[in-house]
Amino acid sequence: MDLFRAYVIADALSILREHVRLDTPVERLGLRDVLHRTLAEDVFAPEDVPAFDRSTMDGYAVRAADTFGASEGLPAYLDVVGEVLMGQAPQGHLETGQAFRIATGGMLPEGADAVVMVEYTEELDEKTIGVTRPVAPGENTVRRGDDLKQGVLLLPRGHRLRPQDVGLLAAAGVSAVRIRRPLRVGIITTGDEVVPVDRHPRLGQVRDVNSYTLGGQVRECGAEPVVYGIIGDDFETLAATVRRALRETEAVLISGGSSVGRRDVTVDVVTSLGKPGVLFHGLAVRPGKPTIGAVIGHKLVLGLPGHPVSAMVVFQLLGRPLLDPGFRRFPVRARLTRSVSSQAGKEDYIRVRLSRGDGGELVAEPIPGKSGLIATMVRADGLARIPLESQGVAASDEVEVIPF
Amino acid sequence: MDLFRAYVIADALSILREHVRLDTPVERLGLRDVLHRTLAEDVFAPEDVPAFDRSTMDGYAVRAADTFGASEGLPAYLDVVGEVLMGQAPQGHLETGQAFRIATGGMLPEGADAVVMVEYTEELDEKTIGVTRPVAPGENTVRRGDDLKQGVLLLPRGHRLRPQDVGLLAAAGVSAVRIRRPLRVGIITTGDEVVPVDRHPRLGQVRDVNSYTLGGQVRECGAEPVVYGIIGDDFETLAATVRRALRETEAVLISGGSSVGRRDVTVDVVTSLGKPGVLFHGLAVRPGKPTIGAVIGHKLVLGLPGHPVSAMVVFQLLGRPLLDPGFRRFPVRARLTRSVSSQAGKEDYIRVRLSRGDGGELVAEPIPGKSGLIATMVRADGLARIPLESQGVAASDEVEVIPF
Repeated sequence: MDLFRAYVIADALSILREHVRLDTPVERLGLRDVLHRTLAEDVFAPEDVPAFDRSTMDGYAVRAADTFGASEGLPAYLDVVGEVLMGQAPQGHLETGQAFRIATGGMLPEGADAVVMVEYTEELDEKTIGVTRPVAPGENTVRRGDDLKQGVLLLPRGHRLRPQDVGLLAAAGVSAVRIRRPLRVGIITTGDEVVPVDRHPRLGQVRDVNSYTLGGQVRECGAEPVVYGIIGDDFETLAATVRRALRETEAVLISGGSSVGRRDVTVDVVTSLGKPGVLFHGLAVRPGKPTIGAVIGHKLVLGLPGHPVSAMVVFQLLGRPLLDPGFRRFPVRARLTRSVSSQAGKEDYIRVRLSRGDGGELVAEPIPGKSGLIATMVRADGLARIPLESQGVAASDEVEVIPF
Repeated sequence: MDLFRAYVIADALSILREHVRLDTPVERLGLRDVLHRTLAEDVFAPEDVPAFDRSTMDGYAVRAADTFGASEGLPAYLDVVGEVLMGQAPQGHLETGQAFRIATGGMLPEGADAVVMVEYTEELDEKTIGVTRPVAPGENTVRRGDDLKQGVLLLPRGHRLRPQDVGLLAAAGVSAVRIRRPLRVGIITTGDEVVPVDRHPRLGQVRDVNSYTLGGQVRECGAEPVVYGIIGDDFETLAATVRRALRETEAVLISGGSSVGRRDVTVDVVTSLGKPGVLFHGLAVRPGKPTIGAVIGHKLVLGLPGHPVSAMVVFQLLGRPLLDPGFRRFPVRARLTRSVSSQAGKEDYIRVRLSRGDGGELVAEPIPGKSGLIATMVRADGLARIPLESQGVAASDEVEVIPF
């Protein structure tokens, strides 16, 4: 590693990944409490789902062979010998030439291998139907184990549970799973000029924005922010606060310190607290140049820029993938509404607003404004990346936008 | 409205929107508690942000005119007459030929209109610098009100607060806002064959999946699910439960009832409970055909299919936009890995898995499997829409995918 090399995001991430291990204790929770939480175990299917062959339509359970060649002109006549009641195993079994009434979700009687939709039958009397269209074996049914086979891996350890994942566990009868306690992430704002939101700033002072923006982003990772407040530009106080945060949390975000002197304080503090310490200092990324990447023990410490937009962007690009590794957000392609220039040798992330163009296609409007201006993030829907080697993107060129 | 017409999603949504009004009481909350909550008021900026002109770089505050023509060969020499301390108004003001030391975020002294980056200066002695590159007026500064002008609308009523929105409120000094109490959404599972997850199903029975999947989806809308459990296929019990849910919640999801007889029970129950009642019954949408759309008073009642996948898809397409109107999710374009067929006259939503193709482009792999199989939703990243008139999409055609 080379402290003096300015990395792009992908390199910075792989350097951090080499050293970061964010483990938390495990608890066992019922399915009502696991949404968006992270699995601490591989979960396997304890049984076949469904546990029996089922109808997917309202109609009649039949032997498919009995319907071959059936048509409106020449229906296949079948004896209705029973009805499948919902939630019950069918009484009796089905012989050639017979049919059972069945509703969607009903259990197929033994001997049946398909279901004829009610629309393709005619009732001749209480006991007889005519089938006007043939069915193939298996048609309008799901078979035992079609959804899940016993023993199959349902969801891997480390997976963050979406609504459908919780539904899968429910379907399989897994009513409780081992879950990681959410990561705790310490948030420290530095700067002699920063005051809390409820205090009126004097001239020269500004309000703490980053503990709210970063706090919200941390929550979106499924983690729990622990806010340590505002620390002046002082080595001892910052060191004590970071030390405490490292005891109480699994990752620490220090924002501010974008001025030369302060950046040095943050670097000195992090260096003093343990190994491996600072892994890079400065990124070839805009916004985000003054970022500090560090690991103490196996815990992540990010020194983020003080500008609210820069801090948010760097957290999204570096913090989110590390704290929320299961997160997948697919890029949206859109045409730029106007050209943007970029310095070669810098990876640029520009804020864009997405909308539909005249032809219905997505267009991305670059949001002008310096990285100190949080209002620009409020207008933005995502970030478009302009690679290191590019000197800009022309209007009407397509870019990939990572939505927030 | 025409109960017998099968609508596509857009039509069904506009019919429901005509009648649905989902109001909840308002409370005033501090900024730590408002993430992902919905604003109940328009919020305006109480003051300019920033409240003073600030430096965006480390360097020297100057008059831009003093640096015109400066170069490495012929620097502009300036007297350093002071230093701006962070969080304080500068002492004194700046005259022609003078400079103040200033750090990022520092307040510009009166008389200064730009900042020279430290990289483009040379220190000759304690009191003199040479500037090696000219700056334009305003360069490396943000001006009072650049972020927010006093009185401007910060965020509109009805907006759901993202991390950057909370940061904007913090920057403006708005430390508490009026917030809507989250919507409560009743979830009722119907069906004689459905048993709770912790009970072992007998042959013919299946476990309740929809109260978990829909419960999770409701939470993702920022709303609060209220689970009313499993109700057998019985008019009186279902009517009593829906009546109770309509008293206690703002919207009710009834899943199940995809078989002909049961669908009728749900329709009869909803019709019996008030006006305007059932607005449509059946959609020209796959999956989702047996959907029932209804409004009682101004409250939404959706009769969703019993198949877990269908219920999830219909909720995402109809429930989410109504319960979470601020939700914006931009479609991702991707090439299909294989062709899919579609019935003309049906709007199809196919589950796809997204990944990167060989050339780095996004590809969408259609996930086969019937809509009863929840495992297919677990493998999927989103839904691709195939319009009403289309008979299918060829492999390598592009589709728009709505990510989950």
